[in-house]
Parts: sequence; structure tokens; C-alpha cells
Amino acid sequence: MEYTTDYKIKNFTQVPDQDSINHLIHKALEFKSKPFKNQSIGKNKTLVLLFFNPSLRTRLSSQKAAFNLGMSVIDLNATEGWKIEYTDQMIMNSDKAEHIREAAQVISQYADIIGIRSFPSLTDKEKDYSDHIINRFIEFASVPVISLESAIRHPLQSLADVITINEHKKTHRPKVVLSWTPHPKPLPQAVPNSFVEWINLSDVDLVITHPKGYELAPQFTGNTPIIYDQESAFENADFIYAKNWSSFSNYGQIISPKSDWMITQKKMNLTNDAYFMHCLPVRRNVVVEDTVLDGKKSLVIQQSENRIYATQAVLHQLLSSANSL
Amino acid sequence: MEYTTDYKIKNFTQVPDQDSINHLIHKALEFKSKPFKNQSIGKNKTLVLLFFNPSLRTRLSSQKAAFNLGMSVIDLNATEGWKIEYTDQMIMNSDKAEHIREAAQVISQYADIIGIRSFPSLTDKEKDYSDHIINRFIEFASVPVISLESAIRHPLQSLADVITINEHKKTHRPKVVLSWTPHPKPLPQAVPNSFVEWINLSDVDLVITHPKGYELAPQFTGNTPIIYDQESAFENADFIYAKNWSSFSNYGQIISPKSDWMITQKKMNLTNDAYFMHCLPVRRNVVVEDTVLDGKKSLVIQQSENRIYATQAVLHQLLSSANSL
Amino acid sequence: MEYTTDYKIKNFTQVPDQDSINHLIHKALEFKSKPFKNQSIGKNKTLVLLFFNPSLRTRLSSQKAAFNLGMSVIDLNATEGWKIEYTDQMIMNSDKAEHIREAAQVISQYADIIGIRSFPSLTDKEKDYSDHIINRFIEFASVPVISLESAIRHPLQSLADVITINEHKKTHRPKVVLSWTPHPKPLPQAVPNSFVEWINLSDVDLVITHPKGYELAPQFTGNTPIIYDQESAFENADFIYAKNWSSFSNYGQIISPKSDWMITQKKMNLTNDAYFMHCLPVRRNVVVEDTVLDGKKSLVIQQSENRIYATQAVLHQLLSSANSL
Repeated sequence: MEYTTDYKIKNFTQVPDQDSINHLIHKALEFKSKPFKNQSIGKNKTLVLLFFNPSLRTRLSSQKAAFNLGMSVIDLNATEGWKIEYTDQMIMNSDKAEHIREAAQVISQYADIIGIRSFPSLTDKEKDYSDHIINRFIEFASVPVISLESAIRHPLQSLADVITINEHKKTHRPKVVLSWTPHPKPLPQAVPNSFVEWINLSDVDLVITHPKGYELAPQFTGNTPIIYDQESAFENADFIYAKNWSSFSNYGQIISPKSDWMITQKKMNLTNDAYFMHCLPVRRNVVVEDTVLDGKKSLVIQQSENRIYATQAVLHQLLSSANSL
Repeated sequence: MEYTTDYKIKNFTQVPDQDSINHLIHKALEFKSKPFKNQSIGKNKTLVLLFFNPSLRTRLSSQKAAFNLGMSVIDLNATEGWKIEYTDQMIMNSDKAEHIREAAQVISQYADIIGIRSFPSLTDKEKDYSDHIINRFIEFASVPVISLESAIRHPLQSLADVITINEHKKTHRPKVVLSWTPHPKPLPQAVPNSFVEWINLSDVDLVITHPKGYELAPQFTGNTPIIYDQESAFENADFIYAKNWSSFSNYGQIISPKSDWMITQKKMNLTNDAYFMHCLPVRRNVVVEDTVLDGKKSLVIQQSENRIYATQAVLHQLLSSANSL
Repeated sequence: MEYTTDYKIKNFTQVPDQDSINHLIHKALEFKSKPFKNQSIGKNKTLVLLFFNPSLRTRLSSQKAAFNLGMSVIDLNATEGWKIEYTDQMIMNSDKAEHIREAAQVISQYADIIGIRSFPSLTDKEKDYSDHIINRFIEFASVPVISLESAIRHPLQSLADVITINEHKKTHRPKVVLSWTPHPKPLPQAVPNSFVEWINLSDVDLVITHPKGYELAPQFTGNTPIIYDQESAFENADFIYAKNWSSFSNYGQIISPKSDWMITQKKMNLTNDAYFMHCLPVRRNVVVEDTVLDGKKSLVIQQSENRIYATQAVLHQLLSSANSL
């Protein structure tokens, strides 16, 4: 399948549509075989990265992807407390020194693309699910905005995951199981939300398994089958995608630790010799047994490598869309 | 007006003279129309940025300016507590691990230009106004030093402001009003000091307005008219430049909050349809009303954009001065 | 002496052998005279710097060296608390979110060379002297690892020191004295350990002088003469290399402040008009008198300059070794 024309995107915060997934996979695999083939497109262009939360994989893979395209990068570590006011018509006499209206416009003067990471509060469900931080940046930025994981989505991770599944699938339509796992801390729902969103537009049979009470937001799961019995969900699976998330209904809570939901080799034996996937970082012997993570079917490092080419494909699309507008 | 020869500068910490302002404005506007026209001058040159205080605009615009000239950049975020000893003949057995003599010489081995941001204490007037930190760096550095805002001046901001006024003025000699505004925290006098210094060497009629007790240092204001009545100062103004600063006489203090000194649309209506300027970040509805900031006459985003070309003109001067020395 | 073939190295954590020292010195001095002569070797290559501890010289000189070779750099400041689990088979339910097995493999996806700084605990001698952090990175990384100072060695500093001695020696076999000095805080033994290791493979007569109780680890000192009387050690010295370190036997302790061990001009007068060396940062008038540090025989700034070319030689070796493997 050849793609002769590029579709246009203005920002990258979620899966666009089925065609665009195929296009992005195709483009990413092109870059994987020839990472430096398109360096003129990024010349004299600057990617500004705004991390309001810690990052290893995303921080490194975004920069590597930008370098591969010939871009310059400025990494603004904003975890230390750059406090932005997001609400309009405020009398700004407290600890917030700058309003999103200025912040987004100003950064746009210095950036050709802005990447933003901003985790959810896990306390205010409505605000988190409005994805207000990245959306307010998009509202006021005059250059493309790319999500480096927002309150409710992690699209670059999901694109890398879809590429990895595509590279390793043995049947046209593999069975993929997204399995909740235990974790000592309450985590966002961004990775599973995005994963479901992307996988449901791919040639994959997706099943979600988790303890009762850990249902994801219905706008993401839609009609995806949910099985509350982990072991029966694993039967005939070609890929096990492990991830913890906190409760959506009891918002942001660990409603039950459920340590018996750890992914073990014994459970993997129930599958169709499935690959094991996880977005990392992963808590060994809490989320997954060492044996599985270190085994031959573990794809976690390949997923992290594909983060480069997923991001490179997206940056390339944003740059070429900008050029042709 | 054509500039065929470059004047030489060794460091950039304040306005040089009237000729050089005109030269820098000319050069900055050249770069604004062709940002990448001079990339060979920065090849294999490194700009080291030393931020002893937080920064958004300066951090981004300095890097963008350096990239535009083909330079590499190393951004040393020193806010976390790199403690330098500035006093000579000390027995260094406390918390300061390195002396300015070594620090400045060592960084000079790795940098072609050093940029330094260092805010005032706001407690020791004499020390602050000796601008001792940047001056000690200059004393021991063997490469050019550029101020990214010192204790008492912010020359890159002022150059950007002068460029912006130059672009928007409708008469040969516009009336510019520098107006004090309220602010919840005591702020340095660096921005207004520099602004007065630069504007007074430009073709501009400058008036300063502030409540009694907020007089700036006389070495900066000189004979500039000061009007204590904000509304009468605004009459016939072509540009309103808003900025809070703490008291110079009651050094570093907020002697009176004066919330009625906020810039409002009603006050703007007293002017000659004046442009509104502010260096950002700005406290909305404390320093200035939303209506003014979001209005058609607001130049704040243009000012931030011009920070790139102001810095690029200065870096270009330092690099070409170094080449020809 | 001409070196027509490059020896191969996979990682750089300590002195390789006598031949390789000569080769690296030769290469470093080549780069010192022509810093940009080899920029194609680093094109499209990325150096990832992982600082688990503060750094000025190493941070700047590594980046400058990489830029000189045409490499891109990502500087991961990990001092703020990226907590990695180094022990195998742990149930990771505490504060460590990622295991070294994933961390090292993942970074290897994004880096062509990984540089790591990790200081010792100074509390657990056995663990520190196993150099477990850098060794576990090497165990799992799939790209070359370069030490930016480990728990027990600082090889880039020592290479720079050996280059500096080589440049300034007046006899074929100069006398070099490594002298312990006072310091208000307990410091690692990494710099003196490495210095002894490198110097003992060079054409140098090395003598170590320190108060009793400050003996370095025997695996580093071997048969090097130790003289407990500082003044007699200084006789006929051509180079005085000053450095504080904490006790190895009373591990990590300051067993006695010994302020009379400061390097003074009076003591320097006992030498053969010796050069003064220190790796910096240095506590003035605690470690060494101002007069000596500011005197004509002080080489401390030259040492810091040579950090660039030492690192450039090592990076070049790692890149050309990788290319030819």
C-alpha cells in the first residue's frame, strides 16, 4: 500500500481516524529503516518541550525524533513549579504569575511545534476529562501542539504500541488483551484510554480485563468486550498489554489492591504464546513477574524504541502540514 | 540609512550609545525578515546560559536567537543552588564550593559567549546597585558576557521594547509613558531602569508616572519628567509601558499597594489611542485589565517575538566583534 | 610518534593500558589544535548525559566535546530524584518506579553513547567499591557507557590531568606529588584513585602524601611511595596535585581536619618550582592559599580546558570503535 499524499493535521492529541493510523504506521516504519532520510524538513525548526511532570522515555524519544528530522529542541522542565493560571477573568494576585493566554502565545513565538505533558489531578474528574490544560494551550497557541501525555490520553505511546503490534502480529486480526494489573500508587487512565482508542481503529480483536470497579470511561471503551475473569480473558490471546490504572467511577482511587492480578508466566501459558507489552516504567513482581518481563516474548524494549519513530512520523506530519497550509 | 561597519562591543550589559541603538535596531529588523541569513557566524560556537533565577521568555528567545545564528546552546539551570563565593580572600569553609574567579574562567573554556541572569537581593541596595554578580563574571571571564537581566538592568528586554516602539510609532517623536502598576509581590527595578536608559537615547518623549515613594534611582531617571497623577500623565500618550517595581528609597519594599493604579480601558481612553506594552509575565486584573491586554492595541506578544531578534542582533555583534579583534 | 590504527574500546570507565593512554593523549592534543576536524563521525549520533549528582565542568566539557564532534546531546538532570532499583528479584512496591534492567536498555534505544555520573554513598564501602551503579548500567546497556565520575573513579579528569602534565613537563620523568589537603566536607576518593591509576601508567615518579589514616585503597596505590611528612614529600617536586578525600579505612569519615595541610606558597617554595594542579572546584584558603592558586604556576584552568579534549578523544574512540565493530 502506497501513500502518495499526506493528510493534514493541525495538532496531535488523539487518534485522528483509521486512514491516518495506517499512514502514520507506514511513515514510522519508513523512518525506522531510514531515520535520517528527511532532515531538510526540520532545518531551522524548533521543538519546545514543556514537561509539567517527570519523563524519561518521552523526553528522550521526542528529542531523538526531532534530531532525526534536523530540528532543534528546547526542553523546558516545568516540574519545579511554573504556575500558570488557566481560568479566565481572574484577579491574579495569588501564586500564579502568568496566564495561559500569554504563556501559549509567547511560547508560540519561539517554537515551531510545542509538546506538552500534563498529568491529571486524579481528584477533579470533570476538569481532568475536559483535558483543559492541553486544550487551553491549543486554544491560544499559534503553532501545532503535540500531546506528550495529557490528563486522559497518551497518543504517542499508543501509536508506538500499534506499530509494535503491527510488526509482530502473525494473523491478520490478532487477539489483544488489555489487562489491569496491581500497582502501589494510583495512576492516570491516559495510557489505557488511548490504547483502546487506537486499537479499536486497527485490525485487532480487543478484550479488556480488570476487576469490577476499574471500568474505564465509557466514551473510550464503547462496545469493547470487558471480561472480569483475567484467566478466561487470556485464552487465545496473541498480545497481553499490561497496565495499572486507578478507578474512573471512584475517581482516582485504588479501590482494591488485587495483588493476584499480577501477570505471571502461569497466566501467560493460558494464551496463544502471546507477546507481553507494557509502556514502562514497570514495577517488577508487582505488575509482572520477572520471568515474563525478561522472557523472549516481552516487547517492552521494542515498544520504547518505536516511540522514536512514532514521534518522528507525527512531527513529520505536523511539519509538512504546516508547510502546505 | 545604511550601516556598513559594525561597532565593536566586548560585553552586553547596558545600552552602549545612541549610534549603537540605531545599529542594533537595524540589525534586529534585518534578522526579523531573514532569521537564518547569518548561520555561518555561529558555526562551532557555543552559548552557555546561566540562570540563577527562573526564566521563560529569556530562556527560549536566547536559544532561538542562538539557533538562528547556527550556535549550539548549553542551558545551565542554576536555580537549584549552585553557590558561588563572590568575595575575595575568604576562607571558603562554609556552603560555597566554588569562587567566582574559577567559575568564570572555567565556563569561559567551554563557552564562546556566556549569558547570565541574576536577580537582586532587594535587601542590600548598595550591593545590588553595584551589579556585583554580573560585573565579577565580566572581571574574570575571558569571553563576552551578555546580561539576561542583572540586579539593575534588563537590556535585551529594553532593546526589544525599543524595536517594538520603532515598528509601531506613527510620529517621529512619540510620547511614551512608563507607568508604575500594582503587584502582589515586591519586584526588581531592572526593567524600568533599563527602559528609561534606552528610551532616553531614542527619539521619544518619555514621561514616568508612579505614586510618590516609587521614584527610580536618579542615575537612571536623570531629568526625565515624573508626574504623580497617572491620568494626567496618560494624556496624548502614544505608548503606555506598564510595569510594577518596588521602592528604591525604601529599598525593595511595597510601600503602598495602590490598587487603583491598575491600567484600565478607561485610562487608556485618555491617551492618543496608545499602544499598551508590558514585558510579561503579567498579572491580569491586577497590573492591567483583561480588556486592555486582549485589545487591538496590545503589543505584548510582539514584544516577546522581538526578544528573538534583539538577542540575535546582540549575539551577532559579539561574535563579529570577537572575530575582528 | 604516529598512531595509524585505533585501539578498540567498548566502554570508558577506567584507564585501559599504557598504549591507550599514549594514544588518547595524542588524539586529545590533535583535537586541541583542530577541534572541529572530525565532525562527520558524530553526525546523527546522540550523547545522553545522566547526572545523578551536580556537575559544572563535566556537564559543560562533555557537551562541548560532543558538539565539536558533530554529536547532539541530551542532558538528563537526574539529581531531583529519579529513583532506580538496582537489586534483582525485588518486589518493587516502594518508591523506586523503574529497574536498572529497563532503564539501561531503554536509554540505549535513544543514545549512541551514555555518560553517567554517580557519586558514592560514602557509607557502604563494599557497595561503593563494587562500583555497582555504573557497572549495572554497563551490564544492561546496549551502547557504550562513559563514566562522568563513578563511585570510585573519575577517568576523564585523570586523562585531562595526564595531558596537562604531558604538556608542561620539563624532564622526561617528572616528580609528581599527590597531596591530601583539608576540606570542610567528606569527599569521595574517586579523583585520587583515578589519578594514581593513570599516573602509574605514565612516565612519572609519583609520590603520595597525606596524614596517617587517609591511606587510599591498596588496589589503587599498589607500591606507590607514601610519605606522611608533607614538606619532605614536596622536595624536588615538579607538580603538586592537591586534593582532599575522606578516609578509606574509617570509610567516608573526616578522621582529623588537619588544617595545617593546606597548600601554601611557603610549601611550594620547597619544590622544584612546581606547577600547582587541582581538579576544581576548590575551597580557597582551605585547600590552597590564594597566592598559589592565582600564581603563574597554577594549571587549574588549563586542566579544565583539557577536559574538553580528553572527552573528545574518548568519544571519538567509542564512536570509531562502534563503527568498526
